[in-house]
Amino acid sequence: MTTRKPPFAPQRTHGLAGGRALRPSSKVLPEHARGHNRSLVLQTLYLAGERSRADIARETGLTRVTVSDLVAELIAEGLVLELGPREDARPGKPATLLELNALAFHIIGIDLSEFAIFRGAVLDLRGQIISRAEIPLENSTGADAAAKVVALVERLVAAATLPILGVGVGSPGIVGLGGVVLTAPNLGWVNEPLQQSLAERFGLPVLVANDANAAALAEHSFGGADSDMILIKIGHGVGAGLLLDGSPFFGGRFAAGEIGHVVVGTDGGAECVCGKRGCLETWLATPRLDAALAAAASSDERTTILTEAGQRLGIALAPVVGALDLAEVVLSGPTELLDGVLGTAVIETLRARTMAEYHGGLILRMTTLGEDIVLRGAAAMVLSGQLGVS
Amino acid sequence: MTTRKPPFAPQRTHGLAGGRALRPSSKVLPEHARGHNRSLVLQTLYLAGERSRADIARETGLTRVTVSDLVAELIAEGLVLELGPREDARPGKPATLLELNALAFHIIGIDLSEFAIFRGAVLDLRGQIISRAEIPLENSTGADAAAKVVALVERLVAAATLPILGVGVGSPGIVGLGGVVLTAPNLGWVNEPLQQSLAERFGLPVLVANDANAAALAEHSFGGADSDMILIKIGHGVGAGLLLDGSPFFGGRFAAGEIGHVVVGTDGGAECVCGKRGCLETWLATPRLDAALAAAASSDERTTILTEAGQRLGIALAPVVGALDLAEVVLSGPTELLDGVLGTAVIETLRARTMAEYHGGLILRMTTLGEDIVLRGAAAMVLSGQLGVS
Ligand SMILES: [Zn+2]
Ligand SMILES: [Zn+2]
Repeated sequence: MTTRKPPFAPQRTHGLAGGRALRPSSKVLPEHARGHNRSLVLQTLYLAGERSRADIARETGLTRVTVSDLVAELIAEGLVLELGPREDARPGKPATLLELNALAFHIIGIDLSEFAIFRGAVLDLRGQIISRAEIPLENSTGADAAAKVVALVERLVAAATLPILGVGVGSPGIVGLGGVVLTAPNLGWVNEPLQQSLAERFGLPVLVANDANAAALAEHSFGGADSDMILIKIGHGVGAGLLLDGSPFFGGRFAAGEIGHVVVGTDGGAECVCGKRGCLETWLATPRLDAALAAAASSDERTTILTEAGQRLGIALAPVVGALDLAEVVLSGPTELLDGVLGTAVIETLRARTMAEYHGGLILRMTTLGEDIVLRGAAAMVLSGQLGVS
Repeated sequence: MTTRKPPFAPQRTHGLAGGRALRPSSKVLPEHARGHNRSLVLQTLYLAGERSRADIARETGLTRVTVSDLVAELIAEGLVLELGPREDARPGKPATLLELNALAFHIIGIDLSEFAIFRGAVLDLRGQIISRAEIPLENSTGADAAAKVVALVERLVAAATLPILGVGVGSPGIVGLGGVVLTAPNLGWVNEPLQQSLAERFGLPVLVANDANAAALAEHSFGGADSDMILIKIGHGVGAGLLLDGSPFFGGRFAAGEIGHVVVGTDGGAECVCGKRGCLETWLATPRLDAALAAAASSDERTTILTEAGQRLGIALAPVVGALDLAEVVLSGPTELLDGVLGTAVIETLRARTMAEYHGGLILRMTTLGEDIVLRGAAAMVLSGQLGVS
C-alpha cells in the first residue's frame, strides 16, 4: 500500500451520496457548491472520456474560469491527467485534452452476502477487478465474523498497488445510518458498527451498505440500469435494491428492498423460517429451489417448479411496478436457475397483472455483472461517496 | 383580480419542485443558489412563524448578510412583513420580527377527479379555503370538458381578492411533463396540454398534476404526513400518490401510483373494465363497493364485503410497503366506507403479510383533509413551485 491523501469527499449523506448531490434541506454554501462543481467535472471525465477544459465548461454549464481552477486542483491531486493537444483540423491553438487518471487510486470492495464465504477484491476506478481474496466463514458469527472482515480487508490493503480511495462493503441484513449493521441474522450481528470500526482500524474512508442496495448501485454504475429499476438478489435469501430517479433508495429506516418475507398470493404456501406461510423466500430462495428441483421426478416437474417460482416473484412485484412505474427488473443470482423458464414466468406474470398501456415496455433481464455484482457495487459506493461519480 | 407580478419561481422541474430543490444533474450556478436560499428563508418563515433575521440566519446556516439581502427583496415584493421589535428581556437593541405575509397572494386550486363535477377554490397561502366554485360535468368530454375547466378558473380568478400566485390542477389520469394530461379516459383526454393552455389563457403560472399525487402533496404540506408515505385515493377509480424521502415521486413516465389495475391475489376475482380479472378496483372502487353493499342481505354480509375489500388493499400494498419501507398508509375517500371495518382489515392484512420487525410501526389512517384534499394539494403544488415552500 502506498499512501496518498484521499481527496475531499464532496457530499456524504446516509453513507452514500449517489448522484443526488444536494439533499432537500441542504444549504448551498460556497464550499458545497465547490464540491458539487468538482464532482461535475470528474463525472464528465468519468463518463465522457477525453475532454478539453472548454468541452467540460460547455457540457457542465460551469464557467471556463471555474473549470480551469477545479482542473488545476484535480491535476495537483493526481486525479486528472493532461494528455497533450487535441489532434484536429480546427484552426487556432489546439485544446489540451484531459482524462480521469484511472491509475490514481485502487478501491477495495467486500461482499459479505454469500452464505459460506467472505469475498473481496481490489478494483480500479472503472470498477474492474485487479485482484481477489476470500476467507471461508466456517459458521463464524458475531465478533468472529467481524474479525474475518478485518482480516480480509487487511489482505486486500496489502495487495493494492496504488493509494486506496476507500473500502466499500456490501453486507446482508439491514444497514442503517453510518454503516451500522442493525441486524444480520446469518452473521449474528445486531447494531454492529462495521463502518466505524473498519475506518478506525485502517484509517481509510469506509462505506457499508446492504448487499442488494450495493448490487443495485453496481447496475447503475456499471450495468447500464434504467433510472427506475428494482434489482432482485436471489440467493440464500431474497432481497431487493431500488434505483429511483437514478439514485439508490434506502427507505426511512433503511429497510427498503426487504421483500423476502412478504406473503405472496392468497392460496397458502409453505411454512417460512419467519413463522408465516407463503413468503416470497419459500418459493424463491436457492436452498428451497435446489431442494425442490433435486426431489423432482421429471423434467416437466422441474419446469413447473421454476415456472411457479417465477410467477410468485411476478405476483409480488406487480404492485411495486404499478406503484413506482418501474422501467426495469434486474435479476441477480444463479444463472442456471433464473435465466430461462423462471425469468420468462416473471415477466409474463408482470405483464398479465399490470396495465399493458403503462408497463408494456417493462424490461426484465439478468444482471450483466454476474457473481461480482456486490463487489463492484461496493466499489461504486466508494466512487460515489468519495469522488461524486457514478 | 388585482395584479402583482408573481415572484421569481426558484426551481421548476417536472412541474413540481417539491422540497428537493436541486436535481441530481443540476448545476449550482449563482442564480440557482440565490433561488435556493430565498426558498430557505421563505420556508423558515412559513413553517416556524415569526422570526428575526438573526433567527433565520441561525436556522438556515446562511450568513446574516445573505439573509438581510434576501429579506429586503422579499419585503419589497410584499411577501414578508416586518412586525416590529421582539418583546423580550434580552439586553441590547431588540430584534425586528418578520413573518410571511399570508395576505400577499391567493392561490386557485382545481379538482377534476370527481366523477360528475369539477370543483375549485380560492385558497390562502396557508392552504385555507377562502371561497369555492363548481361546475357540473354533465358527461362533457374532450374540448367541452377542457372548456369547463377554463370557465371554472375564470370564475375563481374573478372571486380572488388578492394577486394570484398561480393555479394548481389535480387531474385524473396520467399527467406528464409540462402538465400535459397524457390520458384521462373518463374525460376523453389524450395528450391534453392543460397546463400550457390555462397558462396562456390566464397569464398566470399553472401547474397540473395527477389527482392522487396532488393529494399526497396535500398530506405532506397540510396533513403532517411522514416522509415515506403512500396515499390511496379511493373513488370512482383507485389511485395512489407517493411521498418518498419527503418529496412526491412521479415515476419515469409519470405513471407512479397507478395501482388500480394491478391484479390482487391468486384466486380469481371479478371481471374489470380493463379486461383482466381481480384488479384492485374490482374490490375497492366506490361504485362497485356501493353496489355490493346495496345488494347485501344482512349487516354481516356488508361487514364481509368491507373486510374483503380492505384485505385486498392490504394484499396489494404488502410488497410495496416491504420494497419501500413505508412508514404510513393514508386513505382518502368516502369516510363511511373506509373508516372502520375496511381500514382495520387493511392494516391487519399488512401486518400479517410483512415482517413485523421492520414494519410493526406502520401507521394506517384516514386523511385529515377530507374532501378538499385535492384542492389543497393543488394549492400546495403552487406554493412549492412558485415559492419553494411546503
Ligand atoms: Zn418469511
Ligand atoms: Zn382492471
